Amino acid sequence: MNFSPTGLDPLLDDALKAIGTRSAFSGFKESGSKRIHGEEKPAAGLAAFQARLGEPFRLDDQPRDFKVAEECSPFTGQPLNIAYPAPDLEGQFDAAEAAMTSWANASIETRVRCCLEMLRRIDAHGFEMAHAIMHTAGQSFPMAYAGSGANALDRGLEALAWSWLMMTALPFDAQWEKQVGGGEPTQLHKQWRLMPKGSAVVFCCASFPTWNGYPAIMANLACGNPVLIKPHPTAVLPMAIAAKVMRDTLSDAGFDPELIQLVVDDSEIPLGKVLVEHPKTAIVDFTGSALFGSWVEQHAGNRPCYTETSGINTVILDGAADLDAALDAVVNTLCLFSSQMCTSPQTFYVTDQGMKDASGRHLSAEEVEAALVERINALASDGRRAASVMGCIQSPTTQTLIDHWTQLAEAGQYRLLRKSEPYEHPDGDGARTATPLVLGLDLDSGQAPEEEIFGPIAFVVRAKDRDEALVHASKSAREHGAITAYVYTQDPQYQAQAIDAFAQAGAALTCNLTGNMPLNFSAAYSDMHVSGLNPAGNATLADPAFIAGRFRYAQTRSPKPC
Amino acid sequence: MNFSPTGLDPLLDDALKAIGTRSAFSGFKESGSKRIHGEEKPAAGLAAFQARLGEPFRLDDQPRDFKVAEECSPFTGQPLNIAYPAPDLEGQFDAAEAAMTSWANASIETRVRCCLEMLRRIDAHGFEMAHAIMHTAGQSFPMAYAGSGANALDRGLEALAWSWLMMTALPFDAQWEKQVGGGEPTQLHKQWRLMPKGSAVVFCCASFPTWNGYPAIMANLACGNPVLIKPHPTAVLPMAIAAKVMRDTLSDAGFDPELIQLVVDDSEIPLGKVLVEHPKTAIVDFTGSALFGSWVEQHAGNRPCYTETSGINTVILDGAADLDAALDAVVNTLCLFSSQMCTSPQTFYVTDQGMKDASGRHLSAEEVEAALVERINALASDGRRAASVMGCIQSPTTQTLIDHWTQLAEAGQYRLLRKSEPYEHPDGDGARTATPLVLGLDLDSGQAPEEEIFGPIAFVVRAKDRDEALVHASKSAREHGAITAYVYTQDPQYQAQAIDAFAQAGAALTCNLTGNMPLNFSAAYSDMHVSGLNPAGNATLADPAFIAGRFRYAQTRSPKPC
Repeated sequence: MNFSPTGLDPLLDDALKAIGTRSAFSGFKESGSKRIHGEEKPAAGLAAFQARLGEPFRLDDQPRDFKVAEECSPFTGQPLNIAYPAPDLEGQFDAAEAAMTSWANASIETRVRCCLEMLRRIDAHGFEMAHAIMHTAGQSFPMAYAGSGANALDRGLEALAWSWLMMTALPFDAQWEKQVGGGEPTQLHKQWRLMPKGSAVVFCCASFPTWNGYPAIMANLACGNPVLIKPHPTAVLPMAIAAKVMRDTLSDAGFDPELIQLVVDDSEIPLGKVLVEHPKTAIVDFTGSALFGSWVEQHAGNRPCYTETSGINTVILDGAADLDAALDAVVNTLCLFSSQMCTSPQTFYVTDQGMKDASGRHLSAEEVEAALVERINALASDGRRAASVMGCIQSPTTQTLIDHWTQLAEAGQYRLLRKSEPYEHPDGDGARTATPLVLGLDLDSGQAPEEEIFGPIAFVVRAKDRDEALVHASKSAREHGAITAYVYTQDPQYQAQAIDAFAQAGAALTCNLTGNMPLNFSAAYSDMHVSGLNPAGNATLADPAFIAGRFRYAQTRSPKPC
Repeated sequence: MNFSPTGLDPLLDDALKAIGTRSAFSGFKESGSKRIHGEEKPAAGLAAFQARLGEPFRLDDQPRDFKVAEECSPFTGQPLNIAYPAPDLEGQFDAAEAAMTSWANASIETRVRCCLEMLRRIDAHGFEMAHAIMHTAGQSFPMAYAGSGANALDRGLEALAWSWLMMTALPFDAQWEKQVGGGEPTQLHKQWRLMPKGSAVVFCCASFPTWNGYPAIMANLACGNPVLIKPHPTAVLPMAIAAKVMRDTLSDAGFDPELIQLVVDDSEIPLGKVLVEHPKTAIVDFTGSALFGSWVEQHAGNRPCYTETSGINTVILDGAADLDAALDAVVNTLCLFSSQMCTSPQTFYVTDQGMKDASGRHLSAEEVEAALVERINALASDGRRAASVMGCIQSPTTQTLIDHWTQLAEAGQYRLLRKSEPYEHPDGDGARTATPLVLGLDLDSGQAPEEEIFGPIAFVVRAKDRDEALVHASKSAREHGAITAYVYTQDPQYQAQAIDAFAQAGAALTCNLTGNMPLNFSAAYSDMHVSGLNPAGNATLADPAFIAGRFRYAQTRSPKPC
């Protein structure tokens, strides 16, 4: 790969450099603090969000039918009452197709420049977007601004830079000469052009719509493909704002805004399956549940299909240089956005030997369990801190799940180590909050769940020893999917075994990390997110496989002009 | 991409250089002439082939059940009576899985070196292989030696070089540092390793088994995946020889030969569908019919699936600088291997305006049709030349097809411009030969076939004008698939329109080519074969998309060691 500067745009060049070296980089500000942005921008962003409420969201001036989406703020419990253009699949696919030709015929440079401008303009809407994320996904403001803002834009920029790398990998014309039989050699002038695959459907999930959305949108668009964004019906607004910004950018650059469209469906007439199987769908990008993701993979046929679903992310607690620091790190990450992230840990393995630290301090298994619960309690009891870390619960279904698993524990199937309760949110009673439910079980009970249980529901599995824990954790990742795994140990040999086991299982492993960075932070340009090696999906952010199928080569050859 | 020399092997470095510049290169000798190879090697190759006949083909010393395959020489009409190890899918998948670990753990350099050695050793079996190809696929000796030998090995080497490029695109470890909150920055040591996807099933077709087989095998193996080769039941021997050579190479390098296995089925108990849907199949490479290829694409689920099927390759005859040279080229390519190549032209568009040359010479539509038939007749009447160009007919089914289409013409549905007859093969009456059947029709009759009609069956379609011809030819490619298209014209503007139309349709276009090189020669390292833009498949030889999904990244990160 050629990661050297293109001269096209410093943002692109910095991204390429970071990709080539896997080093830390952000093209956007991760903090929404007024100390950086001043008073005006944050207030204007909030006002812009508030002005959306109860109004039709106009993507353009076309006369369209509007329909109110099923959005309801996890922070206030109030419906957003925003109406979006009603879906019109045939018309939308036709419009996408019509828009494609001039976009695909534009130079790679032009398309990439236009995509860079989109990212910058979305970033300029950072505060409005953060409020949109909070009131649909339920993220806290800091996460909504950084995780769904800068970090998501960085993932988008990363995919854009990869698109550049892949599209410019080969020459577009060549002279070819070969002696065939007697006489003059055959001389051919060969030319290649990049062709888009066609309309791409990008499914965005409810709890983190932009983070996977931007990379898929950028990769598709940069490679010449129109994009139909299919947001989750309960989290439309963030993608609608992004779509509007991208459409305006396209218009301003002289391209047809229908290259970016929004398909807003509802739970009564869901359109996901229709979109996947539509004859005009050429590419599918899916982020969402394992169940529907698997259906998508089985029904995408010969369309390139990039999926991120879910799995069982595990933590093995064997030992640590500093036990308190390790347990702090683990609990903070468990609590982060109430475990509604695809990288959130679900299952914690504690062995009968407990945990030891470097100085010889020892915690028994019971003490480790108690220490975990204690830390969650401490966090939960501080409403302001809990709000900042845990945010809100995106979907009422998650509360139903919490109740279901609580009942199983109360019926004796699990040890109820910690009940889930709402915490006191500083913004008031309207906020849907839930602190982690923690269930204990013995590994040999066979009761460890074999699928992701979405939300703040953690399982502490007691294993006879760390080897048993590793075998079970890695097998579970391989068979049921996992994006991440976490191991705390002081034994380099055990760490090496864990590295092998989770590599085979395709879960990105983080060892012995403590400190400020959430364990599950996946850094653009550096961390490979989703391995393609287990059922959690194949949409690696970002590697060549994430781009390669999105464009193809068309070839022409003719005798060399004399 | 970094196409610069690796120092690993000059063969690899030459291939990388050719790929980066799209220039002509062959790593192997394309001629099987005794003037190059001497007397001994050709004789030894023939003897080796003959010694295979009527014997069990032993891949190793294991006790196995053997079963005679359905191979029958198109040259002699005699069954080969070679028995191959009977399939044992569960055992074979288990053996593949067991073999994978140490191979995947070997360095990229080791794997690529071993694959290079395989290609060299297969090349050293060139004469034996050529006879095996002749007596299964029915190719003439020159084609069997060059097309199924050197050219196929070059395609394999190209895929191997691409595997190298993709596997070495990114660093395997990095230091990462980021300031997160207050205090010390987070410092992480990150490591990546390449992981294979798992067992790959490679379907090889009957008429040209090695040409698509080698690239798929090399790409899979280089990326760490075991390969189960599924030859067509009537053309097993070439792939059996190749498999034996590759297994021996693996053994000699200290690896488990079960990394390469052969699954020989028969028409009574076909195993293709079982293989595609087998839970242990991780990758599918398919070359074969459009009908089965489409089934494969729909049933591969989330497995990477690379297909080459077939389509309607077209020729538009508008004009030429030298009419005779153009018609010679077109007829030679139509006759080459009796149109049993995926790049063979099927439909010829002649317009009511006929063809004009540079000097003003004009041929009416009728004269163009007559000139085509005349040239076929001339070739067919020269048994020695016909044998060299046309070879034999691989499958009796093709003769049935010829009879069927002849009957349609005799029933008045088409103009019977030329009947198909056997030509007199110098090797005697046992050879299954058939010269091209040529059927004429008017475009507005709506009788142009909408699928590939395999074998020496050509359609001359009379169009009102060249624009109508171009619309029809490109639409047919887009909708029904096509790998190639050919246009002869003296008008640069029309040529530009054709370039656009066939780029949209995803057929590789060759314009105005005359001379010794067959029009449908697809050069390794330079010509992109199969576009992924129409139903003829997505297995582009070779581009990053052909490799990217065959391996994945596993990641580990831990705090930077102090």
